[in-house]
Amino acid sequence: MRQNPARRGALLDAAIDVLAREGARGLTFRAVDGQAGVPGGTTSNYFANRDDLLTQAGARIYEHLTPDAATMARSLDGSRDRKRVAELMHELVARIGTHRTGYLALLELRLEATRRPGLRVVLTQQIKADIDANITYHMESGLPGDATTVLLLYLAMNWLIVEQLTLPDVFTEAQLHDLVERAVEHLVPPN
Amino acid sequence: MRQNPARRGALLDAAIDVLAREGARGLTFRAVDGQAGVPGGTTSNYFANRDDLLTQAGARIYEHLTPDAATMARSLDGSRDRKRVAELMHELVARIGTHRTGYLALLELRLEATRRPGLRVVLTQQIKADIDANITYHMESGLPGDATTVLLLYLAMNWLIVEQLTLPDVFTEAQLHDLVERAVEHLVPPN
Repeated sequence: MRQNPARRGALLDAAIDVLAREGARGLTFRAVDGQAGVPGGTTSNYFANRDDLLTQAGARIYEHLTPDAATMARSLDGSRDRKRVAELMHELVARIGTHRTGYLALLELRLEATRRPGLRVVLTQQIKADIDANITYHMESGLPGDATTVLLLYLAMNWLIVEQLTLPDVFTEAQLHDLVERAVEHLVPPN
Repeated sequence: MRQNPARRGALLDAAIDVLAREGARGLTFRAVDGQAGVPGGTTSNYFANRDDLLTQAGARIYEHLTPDAATMARSLDGSRDRKRVAELMHELVARIGTHRTGYLALLELRLEATRRPGLRVVLTQQIKADIDANITYHMESGLPGDATTVLLLYLAMNWLIVEQLTLPDVFTEAQLHDLVERAVEHLVPPN
């Protein structure tokens, strides 16, 4: 397997684009070569097989979706109360637009995981680690609520993102904003 | 277009099976013919094109997922309090197993709707109508809470179903049960 990390990253980003646009079934080595604008056969030199490509694409999406250190630090500015949680949730929803391809590709990978046991194992580990990191971050930052608070917000915000990504006319912007407010109001203790 | 309703229904059920197993890109007239065990060309006699097949499959899934009159009537047995809402939510989650194919096919259709404006319009109408029906049912049945209660339960339960369907090892059975209990506790007023 070739090891140039920049090239590997570019191929994974092309794979994420193909996943979002064509679905998991459309993700072939040839489609990734085309999307990345590299000579035919390049992708097959970097990934052992389709499972390898799918699982590495999943890891790459998480790299992109995880806020960088500066964003994490900034998110601790200001108060540590319910109002701040609501602001963070609004920021999360606002980020959907800029990470649209990654979110869609992740949904495609989840569906593909129902058909591929190896992918299911890897995605399960990634998502458990992501949930645990969210709980740890919430608790250590001194934001109000406990692990259950974070899990219930995770459930509500994830489906709100699916709705907004796939059928954006089900809820208006104003309804989405209100749902975030009401979710935080019900799920997060006042302080 | 041929009109035999039983045959049309059987072809749509075959299309739902193909959607869940192969993804939206795998849904061809030929694949539906094969899944339904009918002569090649049959599906093309019943549906004008792939958009027609996809939108009718979406409507068919909603027919299957909507509880029948007997189930609806039975769901009004007993008390009309928060405890009853929790029971109904547990029953909803328990039904995932028996409607697994329909739920997975609906997720595939949502992703396909990001590529097909016509499908997006039809699915948006169906899902808005479903949400409105849930709100009306909840209010008229005298269960505690308002439209926001129903919407927030809709968000949380839908993602819980996605998690359980696609990556069933992220949460244990006990965690899922507890998440349903805590969601109802936070989102539904005591009476």
